[in-house]
Amino acid sequence: MKDAAMHIPTYDDMLTAHDRIGPYIRRTPVRRSDYLNELTGAELFFKCENFQEPGAFKVRGAANAVFGLDEAQAKKGVATHSSGNHASCLSYAAMKRGIPCNVVMPHTAPQAKKDTVRRYGGQITECEPSTTSREETFARVQAATGGDFVHPYNDPRVIAGQGTCSKEFIEQTDGLDIVVAPIGGGGMISGTCLTLSVLAPETRVIAAEPEQADDACRSFKAGYIIADDAPKTIADGLLVPLKELTWHFVSNHVSEIFTASEQEIVDAMKLSWKHLRVVMEPSSAVPLATILKNPEVFRGKRVGVIVTGGNVDLDRLPWMAG
Amino acid sequence: MKDAAMHIPTYDDMLTAHDRIGPYIRRTPVRRSDYLNELTGAELFFKCENFQEPGAFKVRGAANAVFGLDEAQAKKGVATHSSGNHASCLSYAAMKRGIPCNVVMPHTAPQAKKDTVRRYGGQITECEPSTTSREETFARVQAATGGDFVHPYNDPRVIAGQGTCSKEFIEQTDGLDIVVAPIGGGGMISGTCLTLSVLAPETRVIAAEPEQADDACRSFKAGYIIADDAPKTIADGLLVPLKELTWHFVSNHVSEIFTASEQEIVDAMKLSWKHLRVVMEPSSAVPLATILKNPEVFRGKRVGVIVTGGNVDLDRLPWMAG
Repeated sequence: MKDAAMHIPTYDDMLTAHDRIGPYIRRTPVRRSDYLNELTGAELFFKCENFQEPGAFKVRGAANAVFGLDEAQAKKGVATHSSGNHASCLSYAAMKRGIPCNVVMPHTAPQAKKDTVRRYGGQITECEPSTTSREETFARVQAATGGDFVHPYNDPRVIAGQGTCSKEFIEQTDGLDIVVAPIGGGGMISGTCLTLSVLAPETRVIAAEPEQADDACRSFKAGYIIADDAPKTIADGLLVPLKELTWHFVSNHVSEIFTASEQEIVDAMKLSWKHLRVVMEPSSAVPLATILKNPEVFRGKRVGVIVTGGNVDLDRLPWMAG
Repeated sequence: MKDAAMHIPTYDDMLTAHDRIGPYIRRTPVRRSDYLNELTGAELFFKCENFQEPGAFKVRGAANAVFGLDEAQAKKGVATHSSGNHASCLSYAAMKRGIPCNVVMPHTAPQAKKDTVRRYGGQITECEPSTTSREETFARVQAATGGDFVHPYNDPRVIAGQGTCSKEFIEQTDGLDIVVAPIGGGGMISGTCLTLSVLAPETRVIAAEPEQADDACRSFKAGYIIADDAPKTIADGLLVPLKELTWHFVSNHVSEIFTASEQEIVDAMKLSWKHLRVVMEPSSAVPLATILKNPEVFRGKRVGVIVTGGNVDLDRLPWMAG
């Protein structure tokens, strides 16, 4: 997949993706809150990707990869390594097409994540929680199954799929001054840049990142990819580093990368649950945390926020811990 | 308001209400979950009234009452007694029209409820937590202000307003076999009956009630209103008894009243948070609890569930209590 991985996805790829995945994803609604508008001085629009059936935007990219396979490859299925939303979303998409999905996960991954992958028919092979073990295990699984590797974000098919979210967002809001999305590996931000740079070039794209996993912010300032060494944050969807494809979009199209502390993320998460009344995971609260922290940037603006996911452990909510 | 209270609202009243309140309410989205569909064997549609700005369907009836006042009465404002969603929704509607709203609340009401009423400009007069004190205090406040009494549910304007929810619901779903809504005083159920008996007479209306506050169920079986003596349930929006107007609709149009235990309500609430990813209050989870308990009634059917509200104390979630 080396060649495919280096192909920079285009606006047309995104349009093709949207047609392809239409039957398998939800056109998620946009939520608003007068209260949060007053609090921030901005006009906020929240695109609820947590309302996708598997609970995260990643079903867009996953479905684009799965439904774009030719018949011969489809028989062998897909494979990935992930302990998060990508694993369940890829399994979900593969289930919808009726093809195999192999997932390599560390044995330390939460039981709930494993259960979700299995519920969608994904086949889990466990590895040690180290990069070496993961890569070795994955190579073995892929050799045995011939499954097509769908990287969680550094894959043009995945980025084109994620870009479909912003197309809907612009249609649903009649335009936005700024779109803010969380940044981890950069898949959603890249898709957002891909779409908005053509469809709404006047719309600024701002990325939001946990202070404690601020590798994208530091990369952005340095001008080259810096990877964190074992970052720790409650926003567990944002631990992974940028890769070449996502770096392309981040370095060319992102206006700013703002960061927020752990406490700011938890406060924004709770505020969202209370006033939007949607269940969002900590990663999805990072944008609102940065909006609250940088009011001068957002005041008076029409600001779109991508609520990336809603998979949380309801028995371990962060504001209960302290 | 004795005369107005005894007028039985009509389908035309509901249509007028919908036009009147349009600018002040949200046309709330309908959520679905493949997971909950598989679990119940039914095709479920959840109408998210918890997404109204003040977090509950009651803004519909409140706005209909407030915006239907003539100019002379509007100057004197509105008044009510409530410690729940009706108080904040009436305050919200009055704020939108820019008129006074007086609310009598027991001094024991949760601080968060008082804060919400005040945030919307409502004027609170506290009373003792007894019926005598509440009625005396309310009579005094009403005499002093001349505010028009808007009862939380036994008011034709309120029932016509609540009925607008089902009109949207039928339009959004292209028809339903059954609609299930929680029943307390019966305002939402009455509005649902009012609308569906004309718009979709083949759609059955089923009410869902906590076992521990099952006065509507016992009334339904007995054929006359029975009021509970100080019921206790986690579904704190459903404590109040039926009154003559709501009894009219319940006795004439409701097909069944099902009940659920406290544990079943909590389980359904948690299941909804997890799979619908919406924040609903315990009262709103009673319908799903009864659907899970009576699968034979709902299996294979298109079932609409009205998610009535989403105002919960995030620091005291019921599954945390142990």
